[in-house]
Amino acid sequence: MEVKTPIILVNYKTYSESVGGKGLEIAKAAEEVSKETGVCIAVAPQHSDLRMIAESVEIPVFAQHIDPIKPGSHTGYVLPEAVAESGAVGTLINHSEHRLVLADIDEAVRRAREVGLKTVVCSNNIEVSAAVAALNPDFCAYEPPRLIGTGISVSTAEPEVVTRAVEVIRRVNPKVIPLCGAGITTGDDVLAALKLGTEGVLLASGVVKAKDPKNVLENMANSALKK
Amino acid sequence: MEVKTPIILVNYKTYSESVGGKGLEIAKAAEEVSKETGVCIAVAPQHSDLRMIAESVEIPVFAQHIDPIKPGSHTGYVLPEAVAESGAVGTLINHSEHRLVLADIDEAVRRAREVGLKTVVCSNNIEVSAAVAALNPDFCAYEPPRLIGTGISVSTAEPEVVTRAVEVIRRVNPKVIPLCGAGITTGDDVLAALKLGTEGVLLASGVVKAKDPKNVLENMANSALKK
Amino acid sequence: MEVKTPIILVNYKTYSESVGGKGLEIAKAAEEVSKETGVCIAVAPQHSDLRMIAESVEIPVFAQHIDPIKPGSHTGYVLPEAVAESGAVGTLINHSEHRLVLADIDEAVRRAREVGLKTVVCSNNIEVSAAVAALNPDFCAYEPPRLIGTGISVSTAEPEVVTRAVEVIRRVNPKVIPLCGAGITTGDDVLAALKLGTEGVLLASGVVKAKDPKNVLENMANSALKK
Amino acid sequence: MEVKTPIILVNYKTYSESVGGKGLEIAKAAEEVSKETGVCIAVAPQHSDLRMIAESVEIPVFAQHIDPIKPGSHTGYVLPEAVAESGAVGTLINHSEHRLVLADIDEAVRRAREVGLKTVVCSNNIEVSAAVAALNPDFCAYEPPRLIGTGISVSTAEPEVVTRAVEVIRRVNPKVIPLCGAGITTGDDVLAALKLGTEGVLLASGVVKAKDPKNVLENMANSALKK
Repeated sequence: MEVKTPIILVNYKTYSESVGGKGLEIAKAAEEVSKETGVCIAVAPQHSDLRMIAESVEIPVFAQHIDPIKPGSHTGYVLPEAVAESGAVGTLINHSEHRLVLADIDEAVRRAREVGLKTVVCSNNIEVSAAVAALNPDFCAYEPPRLIGTGISVSTAEPEVVTRAVEVIRRVNPKVIPLCGAGITTGDDVLAALKLGTEGVLLASGVVKAKDPKNVLENMANSALKK
Repeated sequence: MEVKTPIILVNYKTYSESVGGKGLEIAKAAEEVSKETGVCIAVAPQHSDLRMIAESVEIPVFAQHIDPIKPGSHTGYVLPEAVAESGAVGTLINHSEHRLVLADIDEAVRRAREVGLKTVVCSNNIEVSAAVAALNPDFCAYEPPRLIGTGISVSTAEPEVVTRAVEVIRRVNPKVIPLCGAGITTGDDVLAALKLGTEGVLLASGVVKAKDPKNVLENMANSALKK
Repeated sequence: MEVKTPIILVNYKTYSESVGGKGLEIAKAAEEVSKETGVCIAVAPQHSDLRMIAESVEIPVFAQHIDPIKPGSHTGYVLPEAVAESGAVGTLINHSEHRLVLADIDEAVRRAREVGLKTVVCSNNIEVSAAVAALNPDFCAYEPPRLIGTGISVSTAEPEVVTRAVEVIRRVNPKVIPLCGAGITTGDDVLAALKLGTEGVLLASGVVKAKDPKNVLENMANSALKK
Repeated sequence: MEVKTPIILVNYKTYSESVGGKGLEIAKAAEEVSKETGVCIAVAPQHSDLRMIAESVEIPVFAQHIDPIKPGSHTGYVLPEAVAESGAVGTLINHSEHRLVLADIDEAVRRAREVGLKTVVCSNNIEVSAAVAALNPDFCAYEPPRLIGTGISVSTAEPEVVTRAVEVIRRVNPKVIPLCGAGITTGDDVLAALKLGTEGVLLASGVVKAKDPKNVLENMANSALKK
């Protein structure tokens, strides 16, 4: 399941609208839109739904979190090997709702790489974006916490900050692909994000809580193609 | 999937011997022994294996951990509703490798009850066992951390402490069922635990890392019947 | 510096009104009122002010937190021995703003006892109050988080819950002295708390942010004497 | 109290040899050696000793940790304003024994700057050193955890890693001053560290647990002058 850009990455969070069969429906919609448009759409379900969804769709499936651990005595934590074995191809790390100790982000990125998982490490401002880039993840997703879940898009509310985040990420580590997120609900938001230099978006409620997730995703994917 | 006592609860931890198909094999062995002997054997796989194993066997499946959260914005955490929806019937809480803030244990027990999950809350000494009992879980599993993973059984190394843990749990809250764990690897260990007043055991490496898990489980289940 | 009941315990939190010299002024006011009325008034300044205040007043000084550690390599944590050596006679543990893992509350209470510090362990509801009592602290302070800092007193808003908290604490462990807190700002609030069976109150903004802390403390101490 | 380089920064940790009066003696020894040699020697006592030591010696005093908080309701946490008011001129942040969430390191550095505290942020490897430099602290102290407390000096055991850490720190942010630590116990270790491009060392047991701390500090300060 190739992860390519531009990417629309849908974080299911722990919304009731995304548990089990409901999450599978969203993944099916994402798969259809991805096939229609050629735009990469990935989903990040809850841990207990990873395998079921990864087995059911041909789009990239991400975990929402991994722990920086090796196989062993870590009851209840999320082993990178288990995530990879379930069929996921990548993982979010350090989402603003699940922040990690700095050394643990570093170790989680290493562990993900060892087991073949792509990493999307989240950042909350310019300085933290630069710090994240130094840790060498595949993607850095800049998300200002105060806009998450608001419907006010980072790409229109703070265009200059997105531009600067992209710049510092590129400067510190040109191999890291910049994404942005927070408040993204429309195709225009996605297009604006791409025009600011990102190669994709991370979003959640804009799709998961939409009345018609497929419609929103079509709108977003088609907008992404306009860039 | 009825949870009854005496119970043998196998915690898969994040051992490499328990990921995916390997974990399923252990669950199948547990199911066979449970059917042969009538003893309740439950398994606690990793989050990403919960659904697959719950769909494949007719024994109780437990999560290793839940977070004390409601549906919403909790990226990467373990929603009780999602665990229940995956087919699990219960969960460990506060394992010594995954300790929770006191108020969160209380809230996790409430949330588990709301979604119909049985709760096994772990404790590490007499006073903490009494505190756990006050929180009204279904089970309290006393496990002295220094014996976990050693192969030295709590039920033979510290019989008088197990007896006292059982007493304080019963005194604080007669509805809470006492279990014990740490170092349990043989049928004799299980029988000793039951004779000390517990109604079951929590164990991990003794089964998961055994050369022949089914053989160990048969030995344990048959010993449990001798009480 | 004897800790006796009824007790009025003033938590300085990290309010700017309580740092350094300002905190000392509040402690001096508490000392005067305590001498005038004979009511025990204790203060809980920030760590860096403990010694200066303990050396300057003849009332009990508490820390706001200790860590469950022994002397050693614990950079930046709060060693019980250091708190005792600074002149404090007790410590808060598990305040709702600084919650601890259950096993760590247990260990912190033990460590405090070893170094001669009195312990006030906070709880947020009935079940947690019972759990705290099982850990054998000197005091259990029941504080419903939603009333903290509101000025709506727990003792008038939830009298029946305070009564039940007192009952369960006494039932689980008769040696533990019940306190209550949250929203306490007047002498009437203190008197109500004592009439409900507590032996004192834990408060913060009601005194620290008052225009005239001494006046508030006089009012409270005199009300406490009416019981 | 000027903080200048080369700097020898002595972390008192929570060693019993550094509590109260014993910590003051070490600070007095550091002051004497600093006056004799002109080398900057700073001490980082426990929170409850900060004020007493800052008032007693004319060398820079650092806190071992601050929390990324503003004045308010944060019972038991370490307010940057309170640390500054106590007379400390700087603080360690993210010591390997007290690691912080990435966004909190960023915020702690900001808050320290706002209240006039110098920041020494610790890192555990090359990538994390680069990440720390991106957060713009005054100093970044590279300390491989496996050598901390061993007496095996990072500057002799891993010279090439120290050199690389210095390089990446300088490359990411030329304003950040590199230090190193772990296992430093002799003047030769200090000299080696300076020759590798650092501008000072962070150490603990090598001084605090020495039979004659003053003698060790003299040896270190004189070696520092040889560079």
